[in-house]
Amino acid sequence: MPAISKKGTNMPESPIRKLVPYAEEAVKKGKKVHYLNIGQPDIKTPQVALDAIKNNTLETIAYSRSEGSESYRTKIAEYYKHNSIEVKHYDIIVTTGGSEALLFAFGSIMDVGDEIIIPEPFYANYNGFSTASGVNVVPVISKIEDNFALPPIEEFEKLITPKTKAILICNPGNPTGYLYSKEEIKQLASIVKKHDLFLIADEVYREFVYDGIEHYSILQEPGLEEHAIVIDSVSKRYSMCGARIGYLVSKNKAFIKTALKFAQARLSPPTLAQIACEAALDTPQSYFDEVKEEYVKRRNTLIEELEKIDGVKVAKPNGAFYCIAELPVKNSDDFAKWLLESFDYKNSTVMVAPAAGFYSTPGVGLNQIRIAYVLNEDSLRTAVKILEEALKVYKD
Amino acid sequence: MPAISKKGTNMPESPIRKLVPYAEEAVKKGKKVHYLNIGQPDIKTPQVALDAIKNNTLETIAYSRSEGSESYRTKIAEYYKHNSIEVKHYDIIVTTGGSEALLFAFGSIMDVGDEIIIPEPFYANYNGFSTASGVNVVPVISKIEDNFALPPIEEFEKLITPKTKAILICNPGNPTGYLYSKEEIKQLASIVKKHDLFLIADEVYREFVYDGIEHYSILQEPGLEEHAIVIDSVSKRYSMCGARIGYLVSKNKAFIKTALKFAQARLSPPTLAQIACEAALDTPQSYFDEVKEEYVKRRNTLIEELEKIDGVKVAKPNGAFYCIAELPVKNSDDFAKWLLESFDYKNSTVMVAPAAGFYSTPGVGLNQIRIAYVLNEDSLRTAVKILEEALKVYKD
Repeated sequence: MPAISKKGTNMPESPIRKLVPYAEEAVKKGKKVHYLNIGQPDIKTPQVALDAIKNNTLETIAYSRSEGSESYRTKIAEYYKHNSIEVKHYDIIVTTGGSEALLFAFGSIMDVGDEIIIPEPFYANYNGFSTASGVNVVPVISKIEDNFALPPIEEFEKLITPKTKAILICNPGNPTGYLYSKEEIKQLASIVKKHDLFLIADEVYREFVYDGIEHYSILQEPGLEEHAIVIDSVSKRYSMCGARIGYLVSKNKAFIKTALKFAQARLSPPTLAQIACEAALDTPQSYFDEVKEEYVKRRNTLIEELEKIDGVKVAKPNGAFYCIAELPVKNSDDFAKWLLESFDYKNSTVMVAPAAGFYSTPGVGLNQIRIAYVLNEDSLRTAVKILEEALKVYKD
Repeated sequence: MPAISKKGTNMPESPIRKLVPYAEEAVKKGKKVHYLNIGQPDIKTPQVALDAIKNNTLETIAYSRSEGSESYRTKIAEYYKHNSIEVKHYDIIVTTGGSEALLFAFGSIMDVGDEIIIPEPFYANYNGFSTASGVNVVPVISKIEDNFALPPIEEFEKLITPKTKAILICNPGNPTGYLYSKEEIKQLASIVKKHDLFLIADEVYREFVYDGIEHYSILQEPGLEEHAIVIDSVSKRYSMCGARIGYLVSKNKAFIKTALKFAQARLSPPTLAQIACEAALDTPQSYFDEVKEEYVKRRNTLIEELEKIDGVKVAKPNGAFYCIAELPVKNSDDFAKWLLESFDYKNSTVMVAPAAGFYSTPGVGLNQIRIAYVLNEDSLRTAVKILEEALKVYKD
């Protein structure tokens, strides 16, 4: 039998998805499962986007331009302008989700064996895209005790080698919910300028910032034009995860020209979804205000309820809709499986994402889980109650 | 300024797309351009698919399963059964176009520096996906004189090294239109079994076969279960290029399990398009009969008209909707640019794809172009007339 590649063998399993079969099994057995594992919001997609799909008059679902249509990119540039970010349509490539934007960025700036520094815990699929691209992730640990703030800049400096090509942050962070301050962005800017690196910021949660704090994009930082690459996505902003539309944004022309070659090789981003997403840009502000208000309530409920449980430590997120919780267990992987396979409270259980998969340092985060607060307050309360009851009886 | 990667620098420009700016400029100057460069059919998408989109009742455009929904994959398996191919839903992964299926396949079976043998000329983007994956294409030349039939199997055997992991064919072929016979598939099967290689067949044009000949899939070949990987796509079959839905199909369980990890890293194929594509599987046979009849007419017209031109040599395709034509020019790249920039016949011109980009051997195919017969007969006749007039005055 012909062999699988080393790359394929090394591809990590998704900590968000790998327990899905256990959850399906639990459902088959008649258990109700509360899904806190995946960032799939229950929020409705804006009506303007749904209407655009219903009212489309295409007779042939044809390719779009590889970089996305000019009209769509022009509207995206207006969106950024409205968010105090000055970019033109030609600084933007429409991609198949933020995922593809990451792949194109990695391929355009890194060769096999090159290194990218990422504060951990980080979005688990960065590991997958790094493996697929043959790139090595060099983690710099941020701590739950510090609310997952940016590690001291000296910690980054220590890790820079001739192989280092970029620093990658997620702001606000998945899975931490941490929102980097303007000051922290300036520290990162100074280090990438000093060492001539790219700074990639995954800003897909840009609009999900709470407590009156403002998001500061790396594209707003003066003098960072040649270094800054933003990964963006409509998935969470308009609750359109299944659209698979994201963007690459950069003022570095050599970078955009290179990424376009990757885009051309795969011909086109999805056409139907682009119609929905172009319309989504007309979503009224009231939609976002309501969504934000809802997430703040959910966050407050979740944190409040979690903090009541003995032995549970939790970071307070200012953005996105995730939090990392430390549990009084040895191995959250086993615990998460056990929750689905062997536990129920009033015939219900919860699915969480074990946090070890969000770290690349082996052995770190083993007692942590990521919780996505994408369910309504009542479900969240029930889910945390189930966790509490589970922790009472669980034996490592 | 931080540097672009070697990989990014080496990414080839798409021969299908790179002349688009020249065409846009020609249109701006008031010229009519006949587009023979890209496999974007003018055929309408089946009404059942368009209706499914208009009638969808989603309130949240959510992720689907990473491998595509079970109901969709079950229907795809039925489609294959109807085409004498016995596969189950779990042998199928739904991908974002055939492009992503190729990327996942390359990543799952090849490491950096590994080799894949491909008869050339081949679909140009195989070069792009190979570069992106760090894999080396080893071409085996097929000839216009032989109508681009499978090169003698000894030619493959000569090229096999310890680094060789797979042979890739496109059947029927883009850009050649050549349909491999059952006998040729059996020859390939014997060599991949002998050397323990994978055989990847891009069968996206499976239904576009003419002259009463039947398509023989590598999935129909007995004993090839562990070796055969099929790349498929709805793009051409239902004239839904912009849907970005394809499939990976294989009975090799280790391969599917590995490819699924790549699929999970990017979360989900497009949800809206999957709704359209699941419905498209109910397209009545009459649609395909009409489409096929139309393409046969177009092909016959195109070949007949091309053969009338002095110095033009053309292979007769039995499948897909492309043909390679050899022109009395030194460099078809220059010629194609000149057609758009400096030539018109009654204020019209044509855009063709220079064929050198469909070869990986440098210097081969320089006097060839690929023509996609995706326009109606009248347009094709006009386009060939323009080519004829252009060749009368063009000086290398």
